Amino acid sequence: MVHRVDAARLQSLVSDLLVAAGVPRDDAEITAYVLVKTDLRGVESHGTARLSYYYLHRAQKGIVNCHPNVRTVRETPCSLVIDADNGLGQPVAYRTMQRCIEKAHQAGLCAATINNSNHFGAAGIYALMALEHDMIGVCLTNSQPLVTPTYGRKRILGTNPIAFAAPANQRRPFVLDMATSVVPIGKVEVYRRRGEAVPAGWGTDSDGNVTTDPDKIYNGGALLPLGGPAETAGYKGYGLAAMVDILCGLLAGANFLTGVTPPSVQQTSPSNVGHFLLALDVGAFRPIEEFKADMDRFIAQIKDSPKAAGQDEILIAGEKEFREEEERLRLGIPLNPKVEADLRSLCDEMQVAWPFD
Amino acid sequence: MVHRVDAARLQSLVSDLLVAAGVPRDDAEITAYVLVKTDLRGVESHGTARLSYYYLHRAQKGIVNCHPNVRTVRETPCSLVIDADNGLGQPVAYRTMQRCIEKAHQAGLCAATINNSNHFGAAGIYALMALEHDMIGVCLTNSQPLVTPTYGRKRILGTNPIAFAAPANQRRPFVLDMATSVVPIGKVEVYRRRGEAVPAGWGTDSDGNVTTDPDKIYNGGALLPLGGPAETAGYKGYGLAAMVDILCGLLAGANFLTGVTPPSVQQTSPSNVGHFLLALDVGAFRPIEEFKADMDRFIAQIKDSPKAAGQDEILIAGEKEFREEEERLRLGIPLNPKVEADLRSLCDEMQVAWPFD
Repeated sequence: MVHRVDAARLQSLVSDLLVAAGVPRDDAEITAYVLVKTDLRGVESHGTARLSYYYLHRAQKGIVNCHPNVRTVRETPCSLVIDADNGLGQPVAYRTMQRCIEKAHQAGLCAATINNSNHFGAAGIYALMALEHDMIGVCLTNSQPLVTPTYGRKRILGTNPIAFAAPANQRRPFVLDMATSVVPIGKVEVYRRRGEAVPAGWGTDSDGNVTTDPDKIYNGGALLPLGGPAETAGYKGYGLAAMVDILCGLLAGANFLTGVTPPSVQQTSPSNVGHFLLALDVGAFRPIEEFKADMDRFIAQIKDSPKAAGQDEILIAGEKEFREEEERLRLGIPLNPKVEADLRSLCDEMQVAWPFD
Repeated sequence: MVHRVDAARLQSLVSDLLVAAGVPRDDAEITAYVLVKTDLRGVESHGTARLSYYYLHRAQKGIVNCHPNVRTVRETPCSLVIDADNGLGQPVAYRTMQRCIEKAHQAGLCAATINNSNHFGAAGIYALMALEHDMIGVCLTNSQPLVTPTYGRKRILGTNPIAFAAPANQRRPFVLDMATSVVPIGKVEVYRRRGEAVPAGWGTDSDGNVTTDPDKIYNGGALLPLGGPAETAGYKGYGLAAMVDILCGLLAGANFLTGVTPPSVQQTSPSNVGHFLLALDVGAFRPIEEFKADMDRFIAQIKDSPKAAGQDEILIAGEKEFREEEERLRLGIPLNPKVEADLRSLCDEMQVAWPFD
């Protein structure tokens, strides 16, 4: 049985648990906000489900630094270079995006790199922050290696996501938040558990051959970059994944490729994940009301265009997530039983009261 | 029989022809440079082959403005907004990228939008310009509608390319220059002429169904965005194409979606194409020598990683084009007979001497 829980109360719980694990309250609140906002958007793979393993226990064990000395290493009126000192990814990414937005108000735009960071959840959350300031937000991060380059067979690239958010007027904003692989590894895992074949083009076996056997992809194989194999232009997805790593790993001075270790409670060295953020003030380029009116027209023209046979709707990037969020704010967030059990056991462990009975 | 011609002489010829058509010498020289550089890189689809139809005859007929009053509409220390006044795309994009680079030397980075422009050739050329300044270059443009959104069936999005260039040290630079569709329409046309089926995932018929019949894609169908159909995440390529249009069409205040007319000699209204440029000074983020040394390691790690069965090399974005350029600088550019005939007939028409006999 799936229970629905109130988002604000879930956020308090997550924050309390992180505080009990040693995370300062302000960092815990940002981290809880990011995770629960992600749940609200229906992207459960990147939300509270990951609290214990990715964040809480790693903070508790000191694999992630709970009291990082976050430093601004370089700064110009339109750029920032941040050293996250191996702290949680969410607080440093959130605060750096805030600073980018402030600086973009003055300069027209601001880009930031962050190194010595950790997994920060869903990239889209930080891009979204730009919207209420009438800005375009961009957020990239590198991540643990799961993807093979075209003609390769080893997992050397992350699923390195690209998030991009742009405000509209009457319409909902455009919010793209996509891994540069065809699918995340979790989707292959779902098919594996069900014993079903995956669509051709999602991944390869250990020889680098495209396979529909999720077991072969999962064990020794690799995810394919967006586009799939070479004949359907997978080299483009590979190029995009590499571009994200160049901006997040190399430009930021963080780890890259196989240097980005999976976020694990067994880690012996810091992940040194890198992020890249950009805020563009629309008003520096064009009157904001004109831009937003054009965004409405742009979205309407796409949505009103003729549908493929058997389809009754064309979706805009982010539209599904906004609908999900509206529903979940009203009805609550459905807690998957496994996540509920995990949270209950964390409550026991950290002596935090379970707030939902 | 394919003749090879010297790149410098081909460039002079193209420039002379444009001048004879009414283009001022300095604009003609930039345009010729961009087209021949593209031929040198082996991207013949976007080079001299397009001179007469896309550029010269449209300039001659006044569809493209040969004497544009290019204006800086807005400017901050790290941003530029340019109105190209319906001039050729190449000169305005080239000069705007030069200004971005100059400003990025001071500010750390600079972004520019350009509106009221025209087709500017291959986006990669402008991204490449950043490399000799130890900068990362980004160049995007929107383009005529050829691509259907996921679950649609009409050509409403351009193949809207993303170009990204980053410098290395001993290794060749990383240069991604990719359309956000699976393939360009020209590739479908090649299969159509040969009477061969295309791989599944390249395009749809007029009902929006995936088809391998190039004739159906070409006549009434559409190209699919990178990723192909929904089950292999074509909505991501659709999202990227839309992102490029938001930055180039909407942020620049240019046309977007079906408003971007194909570059044709029958046009009755300006194309109003939009471009987006970005130069990032690596030194504002990290010491350039550290970055370049990491780029060498990054490239080496990818290239040295295990190959898929039957493959003996993993390519880096841009590598094929650099090799092609090195060969063509040595041996000359092979002139395809159709392009040669076209150039010869332009020489007759414009009373310019054929320089290669």
